[in-house]
Amino acid sequence: MFRRIDHIGVAVEDLDAAIALHERTYGMALVHRETVAEQGVEAVLLDVGENHVELLAPLGDDTPVGRFLAKRGPGLHHVAYQVEDIVAALDELRAAGVRLIDEAPRTGIRNSRVAFLHPAASGAVLTELVQPATLHA
Amino acid sequence: MFRRIDHIGVAVEDLDAAIALHERTYGMALVHRETVAEQGVEAVLLDVGENHVELLAPLGDDTPVGRFLAKRGPGLHHVAYQVEDIVAALDELRAAGVRLIDEAPRTGIRNSRVAFLHPAASGAVLTELVQPATLHA
Repeated sequence: MFRRIDHIGVAVEDLDAAIALHERTYGMALVHRETVAEQGVEAVLLDVGENHVELLAPLGDDTPVGRFLAKRGPGLHHVAYQVEDIVAALDELRAAGVRLIDEAPRTGIRNSRVAFLHPAASGAVLTELVQPATLHA
Repeated sequence: MFRRIDHIGVAVEDLDAAIALHERTYGMALVHRETVAEQGVEAVLLDVGENHVELLAPLGDDTPVGRFLAKRGPGLHHVAYQVEDIVAALDELRAAGVRLIDEAPRTGIRNSRVAFLHPAASGAVLTELVQPATLHA
């Protein structure tokens, strides 16, 4: 069902410092930057092989990532697995009794289709499914 | 410097439940299981494409993962990036001023060579470098 790890999501307080660490120190290529107002974040994607690191800076305190930072501080926020058909994957997980945050996919970064599983159903790991735009039918 | 995400490490309280979730519900293949007494964990590796999920159950409360669970509960514990030459990678990071937990690589799961960066130097993300055994010279 899952093709690979699409990305890890990292909650950051200082986006410029996090970009410098990943781009200059780790040598990852910055490939995308997007403000996702609906999710209250500024997001930056960097390539690491076929995987990505997604840096997430909150647009305000009263956003999911803002609340995460206030509670836990910066660090690993979620893991995203890449799927070929997100609707089929959600159907399969629903049939297996997995609780979902998103019953249907919504639009994510770079026009991907994404959905989150409920952490209570995924071993306390916030888990996202991603169907990249380039795999769309 | 980094070839891909080698794995994400997940701290778990109930290893059997975590294996069932990843193997049965997510459809990942369990490829390795090892007790690493020196690190105080029982570790399980599952394949997801060329990446892995590493489930970590502590052998006792007074172990790094045991203390992590007591403080933060189960969830994402670290990310590991795969490198071709871990000694060269550590040299490069040291030259860039990155603080390291392991100045020299030590033996990790499946005879890999591993080293951890200090979270204070890696944006509060516990970050591991892995040179798999099959890439050894």
